[in-house]
Amino acid sequence: MSITTSMILRIEIDKSLITFGEVATAIHHAGGDLVAMDMIRAGKSVIVQDLTVQLNAEDDQQLIRAVNALKGARVVHVSDSTFLAHLGGKIQVTPKTPIKNREDLSRVYTPGVARVCMAIKEDPQKAYTLTAKRNTVAVITDGTAVLGLGDIGPEASMPVMEGKAMLFKQFADVDAFPICLQTKDTEEILQIVKAISPTFGGINLEDISSPRCFEIERRLQEELDIPVFHDDQHGTAVVLLAGLLNALRLVGKSIEQIRVVVCGIGAAGAACIGMLQAAGVRSIIAVDRCGALVPGSAYGNPTLDRIAAITNPERRQGGLSEVIGGADVFIGVSGPGVLKASDLRLMAKDPIVFAMANPEPEIDPELAQPWVRVLATGRSDYPNQINNVLCFPGIFRGALDCRASCINEEMKLAAAGAIASIVMDEELNEQYIIPSIFNDKVVPRVRDAVVEAAVRTGVARRIPPEYQSGENARGSQLLQENMLMY
Amino acid sequence: MSITTSMILRIEIDKSLITFGEVATAIHHAGGDLVAMDMIRAGKSVIVQDLTVQLNAEDDQQLIRAVNALKGARVVHVSDSTFLAHLGGKIQVTPKTPIKNREDLSRVYTPGVARVCMAIKEDPQKAYTLTAKRNTVAVITDGTAVLGLGDIGPEASMPVMEGKAMLFKQFADVDAFPICLQTKDTEEILQIVKAISPTFGGINLEDISSPRCFEIERRLQEELDIPVFHDDQHGTAVVLLAGLLNALRLVGKSIEQIRVVVCGIGAAGAACIGMLQAAGVRSIIAVDRCGALVPGSAYGNPTLDRIAAITNPERRQGGLSEVIGGADVFIGVSGPGVLKASDLRLMAKDPIVFAMANPEPEIDPELAQPWVRVLATGRSDYPNQINNVLCFPGIFRGALDCRASCINEEMKLAAAGAIASIVMDEELNEQYIIPSIFNDKVVPRVRDAVVEAAVRTGVARRIPPEYQSGENARGSQLLQENMLMY
Repeated sequence: MSITTSMILRIEIDKSLITFGEVATAIHHAGGDLVAMDMIRAGKSVIVQDLTVQLNAEDDQQLIRAVNALKGARVVHVSDSTFLAHLGGKIQVTPKTPIKNREDLSRVYTPGVARVCMAIKEDPQKAYTLTAKRNTVAVITDGTAVLGLGDIGPEASMPVMEGKAMLFKQFADVDAFPICLQTKDTEEILQIVKAISPTFGGINLEDISSPRCFEIERRLQEELDIPVFHDDQHGTAVVLLAGLLNALRLVGKSIEQIRVVVCGIGAAGAACIGMLQAAGVRSIIAVDRCGALVPGSAYGNPTLDRIAAITNPERRQGGLSEVIGGADVFIGVSGPGVLKASDLRLMAKDPIVFAMANPEPEIDPELAQPWVRVLATGRSDYPNQINNVLCFPGIFRGALDCRASCINEEMKLAAAGAIASIVMDEELNEQYIIPSIFNDKVVPRVRDAVVEAAVRTGVARRIPPEYQSGENARGSQLLQENMLMY
Repeated sequence: MSITTSMILRIEIDKSLITFGEVATAIHHAGGDLVAMDMIRAGKSVIVQDLTVQLNAEDDQQLIRAVNALKGARVVHVSDSTFLAHLGGKIQVTPKTPIKNREDLSRVYTPGVARVCMAIKEDPQKAYTLTAKRNTVAVITDGTAVLGLGDIGPEASMPVMEGKAMLFKQFADVDAFPICLQTKDTEEILQIVKAISPTFGGINLEDISSPRCFEIERRLQEELDIPVFHDDQHGTAVVLLAGLLNALRLVGKSIEQIRVVVCGIGAAGAACIGMLQAAGVRSIIAVDRCGALVPGSAYGNPTLDRIAAITNPERRQGGLSEVIGGADVFIGVSGPGVLKASDLRLMAKDPIVFAMANPEPEIDPELAQPWVRVLATGRSDYPNQINNVLCFPGIFRGALDCRASCINEEMKLAAAGAIASIVMDEELNEQYIIPSIFNDKVVPRVRDAVVEAAVRTGVARRIPPEYQSGENARGSQLLQENMLMY
């Protein structure tokens, strides 16, 4: 299934050599649908036109070559709808109310704002009621592990961070602002995030390469009283767990009994293992490029050493194919081609496979399908997409609403359970173990579960009214509306 | 002229002792207009009501006391419209386009966004076209010099920074985001702002105390290739100069001939002196708490030392009253009561007085009026308000539009001239030397003048189409719309 895109080709045509009609025909043969033409410059012999063409994204180069191959025609420039959607950035910072006159100004700025400042100075907790800290998360990266592109730096990572901010707002009404850092030094990053933290109610770390991301997240969480969450680790782990819970529900296996192989022990792999163990999985073998990790071995890599120590108690050795025998579940957060159909045939009955390498999964879904009971990937063009968008909006919505000081294991487990619960018993089947990101039940259910877990584990500093009992709840709601609670 | 505000009073009434009508009457006598009543709890003997009351802001305490003085009535809580306007913060970060389906998602997020990232990696200047850097300014404070409140810290300064962001967007469509820093250390602030600069097209420093603000602004401007502008310094100076240009136009004096006294040599005072000298003023005496600054003296304060060296060539000595004789212009950025009517009588003919101390000017306008030709203050309830809002939106709009690497003296002078030019000859009079902040001609005119100055002084890295000649301009506009220029 291809993605359709549209491009605008600026084409120079020498009318003495070729006609527009011939160019249009060539575009058609190359797979493009011409949907608009704008004349830019009509000279005596040379004309310049902008042609809007719809096509499969993968055919763009072929189409451009086809036009350039024509005698008398030349593609001067190409812009496409993706680039056009990015012109001038994708987010904006807008007032919640307009400033129409002096009265408005004196309420939201001088002189009225001074009293609000003093109220916060006297009671800094009031920042959560009276400022954007109530609802704002920083999306912070150093540009070192962006998508599949690697270390591309802060400027080049901005489009991804802006996109993340769009998703936070669109799905969970969380205000998120991108901060792309010019430094990769762990100590500097810690210092910077701590220094800017007064502005924010939470920190979403994004696309920071491992192993630095573990220490950065851990130390920031220790030193800040707002939640710090590295989505590449835990977003993946939470959604994976949600899918697994449903897959197990389908095949009738229990989480304590399954044997799991996790392949690719980077940030996401390590976090997945942590999440699985917290959920009750007892048998996990971790496999990396060096084969299965064995307790007691030293890998010269702190993450591998750490994971080796807490997995594979049976001390099985060898490559993936050597240790996958009898596994109920394969989880891949590695790269393409590491899993073979022959490996799947060695697994237990009703294999469950999460092949989440992006953009190419560990095994071609077409090759895997005959040998698995449930298959999930990171791709949107196959069923069961494991997509972090199912987690981060709702988990932060919940954390902000109860002013949680952190996003702890209970809250992540609760989020996973909430995501899984969207799929009802009668809907659950091999092609549907995880809801669509556009399912609007997801965020409220995740939010509620996360708030409940935060309150239960004592990290909530605000109890939303609906979590209090009866009369108190009604009273609280009224008080809250009139600021008595804050 | 008082500011009207509205409050919500939560009142508890013991019906056996007093009636609601008696409470309403007392509110009326205390100066309040009752505009709404909501029953919160109606018990057998005790009722709780929310009463919305409009009143003069200064009467709020008197009204609360009047209610509490009634037997059987008690004010349980007060919230007012200013606080209500701040609930949950005043700004939001929203997508420019909605994400309605997978096609939208693939365009603004994965996988489409990857190509945009790579385009920026290959040419980092494209961050200005393809990301929010095009239009976004950071509003950065450490909370050490907020309004007239002093060092109140980062959390308490957020409402002012959010208000600033609202003004940037409302008046000039500039996206501005507040960053309130937990540190006051100059080196740390420099490091942090440099590290976060990839996200932004400009930096607005705000409410950072002197003298650190001078070094911070100067060094950031040296080390960053985006504009860095401390509004408390230069916003005040630009708007002051605009007012002065018009006042001189009115009284028929020339800028090179006037004698100016500047009182209060902090951030704003020092910047005003710099701006005046750049505009051609040759005779300036700077006065601080220690009296007139004299060249060659040492004041144990780097700002005072610096200003002393470049002003008062006649070496006049003494307090304000000793050196104000014969001055054409008094500029106050100090405190209340420093200027007396007797001082005004010593000034030259047609005195021009900018008494800008906030909230109480250096002299009560009523006292000053008989002795001056032109009077301006920082207050909104008198004519000729010198308000930085006239400057910062348009100056950043211009800087962003031409991708200026800095906001230099020429650009500030241009902004001042543009603000002054809004007041047309036939409109110019003693009560109208500066436009209203709500005059919608201000921002475009400032923007255009700033762009022109930036292009002329070679700091513009993008020439907006309207600044190119004829055919090139039309072509550029079209190219720009199709991204060829970037």
